[in-house]
Amino acid sequence: MQIIHTIQELRQWRKSAGTVAFVPTMGNLHEGHLALVREAKKRADNVVVSIFVNRLQFGQGEDFDQYPRTLQQDADKLKGEGVAVVFAPDEKALYPHVAQRYNVEPPNLQNELCGKFRPGHFRGVATVVSKLFNIVEPQLACFGKKDYQQLAVIQGFVEDLNVNIEIVPVDTGRAPDGLALSSRNQYLSETERAEAPHLYRELCIMAEAIKAGNLDYAGLENAATAALVQSGWVVDYIEVRHAGSLEVAHAGDKQVVILAAARLGKTRLIDNIEVDLS
Amino acid sequence: MQIIHTIQELRQWRKSAGTVAFVPTMGNLHEGHLALVREAKKRADNVVVSIFVNRLQFGQGEDFDQYPRTLQQDADKLKGEGVAVVFAPDEKALYPHVAQRYNVEPPNLQNELCGKFRPGHFRGVATVVSKLFNIVEPQLACFGKKDYQQLAVIQGFVEDLNVNIEIVPVDTGRAPDGLALSSRNQYLSETERAEAPHLYRELCIMAEAIKAGNLDYAGLENAATAALVQSGWVVDYIEVRHAGSLEVAHAGDKQVVILAAARLGKTRLIDNIEVDLS
Repeated sequence: MQIIHTIQELRQWRKSAGTVAFVPTMGNLHEGHLALVREAKKRADNVVVSIFVNRLQFGQGEDFDQYPRTLQQDADKLKGEGVAVVFAPDEKALYPHVAQRYNVEPPNLQNELCGKFRPGHFRGVATVVSKLFNIVEPQLACFGKKDYQQLAVIQGFVEDLNVNIEIVPVDTGRAPDGLALSSRNQYLSETERAEAPHLYRELCIMAEAIKAGNLDYAGLENAATAALVQSGWVVDYIEVRHAGSLEVAHAGDKQVVILAAARLGKTRLIDNIEVDLS
Repeated sequence: MQIIHTIQELRQWRKSAGTVAFVPTMGNLHEGHLALVREAKKRADNVVVSIFVNRLQFGQGEDFDQYPRTLQQDADKLKGEGVAVVFAPDEKALYPHVAQRYNVEPPNLQNELCGKFRPGHFRGVATVVSKLFNIVEPQLACFGKKDYQQLAVIQGFVEDLNVNIEIVPVDTGRAPDGLALSSRNQYLSETERAEAPHLYRELCIMAEAIKAGNLDYAGLENAATAALVQSGWVVDYIEVRHAGSLEVAHAGDKQVVILAAARLGKTRLIDNIEVDLS
C-alpha cells in the first residue's frame, strides 16, 4: 500500500492502474469506513482511499481544528483491507489559492435539513468531492448512507454534471445498540454515549408507525422530537422526506426516508432510516 | 466522420478512441472555429467537435431562439478537416430536468466585464463546458481567445476543480479588415459591417499607446469609448485588465489585455488584444 501526498504522484500512479474504486474520507477511520472500503474492494482492481479534513465543509465555530487527525492509525487499518493507495494531500495541494474561487453549487437542498444548520457545508462537500473525483478518476465511488443528504448531493451533481462515475451507496454501520458509527461518537461522555442510541430508536419507532399506515408525518416528527427533548437532546430536525429527491414527503410517496440531526451536549449526531412503502 | 447525438453513443465511441482533443462550439461554424479544429487536430489522435446551442448561457431577451442552427453545413465543413466525431446532443440529453440544479459557480469575475451585461452567462458556460468535458473526457480542449473572459473562466474552473484536461488558447481569427470572426457578424447590415472593424482599430490604438509608455488606462479607455460613440456605437465597456487574473490592471503589470464589448444597432460585438509589457 502506498501513501501518496501530491496530486502529481497520484496522477502518475493512476496512469498504469486498472479500474479504481474510490472511498473519500476525512480519516479517523472506524468500522463504518471499513465497510465502504470492503464494498469498494469487491468492485475494482484497486481501491483508493483519500484522507483529507476539508476546511471548506466546516462552518465557523465547527470542529475543524479539533477534528481528529490519525493518519498513521488509519493507514494501519487500511493496509489490512488490501487498499492500493491512501491519498492524503495537504491543504496547500488542494487549495493553493487563499480561497476556492470556483465551486460546485448545489440547489436549494443545500439550505435544508443539515444545510440549514451548516451554511456552506454541502457546497464544500460537492466541491471537494468534485476535485477528488477529477484527481483520482475512479470508475466508482462508495459513500455511506449515514450521511444521507451528502449522498443525495453527490448523486445530484454526478447526474447533473454528467460525471462518469458510478456512485455506490453503502448501508450505515451501527454499534450493537444501534448507534450509527461516526467519528464524532468519540466526543460523547459516558452518559451521553449511553443515551445516544435513543436517536435511532426514535427513527425506528417512526418507521414502524409509517409502515403500519400512519401517514401523519408531522405528528410523528413532533412525537419523536418531544421524546428526545425529554431525554436532554437538542433536536435540529426530524423530517420525513422523499427518498430520491429529498423533497418534503407527501402521502402517496412510495420511498421515504426519515432524517434526523440532534445534539447531546456539544456533540451533533445525525442518523436516518429508509422506509419502503411500495 | 460520425455525427453522434446521444451521450451513451459518445461514451461508447470514447472507450476505444485514443487521445482526444475537444472543440466545444455552438455551431454556425466559421474560419475562427476551423482554426480551433486545426489546432486540435495537431495535438491528438481524434478531434471531437460539439455543436450545442446552450440555453443556460443566454439571458432573457438575448438571441437564443434566433441563434443560427446550421448542423448540415457545419458537418460538411468539419468533414474536410478530418474531425472524428461531431457531438450534437439535443437539449433533453444535456438538460433532462426542467432546470439545471447543480452548477459550476464562478467567482465574482462572472459579474464583471461581459458578465455585468449578461447575468448568469458565465455560470451557464462553466456548467455546460464542465458537462461536456465529463462526457467527452478529452486530453485537451481548444478555446478561442476572442472569448477572452470565457477562456479565463474555463481556465479558472479547470485549475480550481483539478480537471485533468489541458486548455489550449487559440488566437482570434480576423477578417482582412481586422474584424474578429464571430457568428454574430452575420447580423450586421452592410453599413454596420463597414463600421465594425473600428472596434479593433481602437483596441490597437490603445495597445500602441500603452506599449509606448502611456499607463493612463482610464484616459485611454475614455478616448476609445468617445471615438466609438462618435461613430454610432453603444459601448458596454472598454477596460484594461491583468491578462492572467482579469483583475483591474495596475501600473506595473507586465501582461495586460484590453477587452471591449460594444453594440452596433442590435448586434453586440466583443474583441480584445493582449499587450506584453515585459
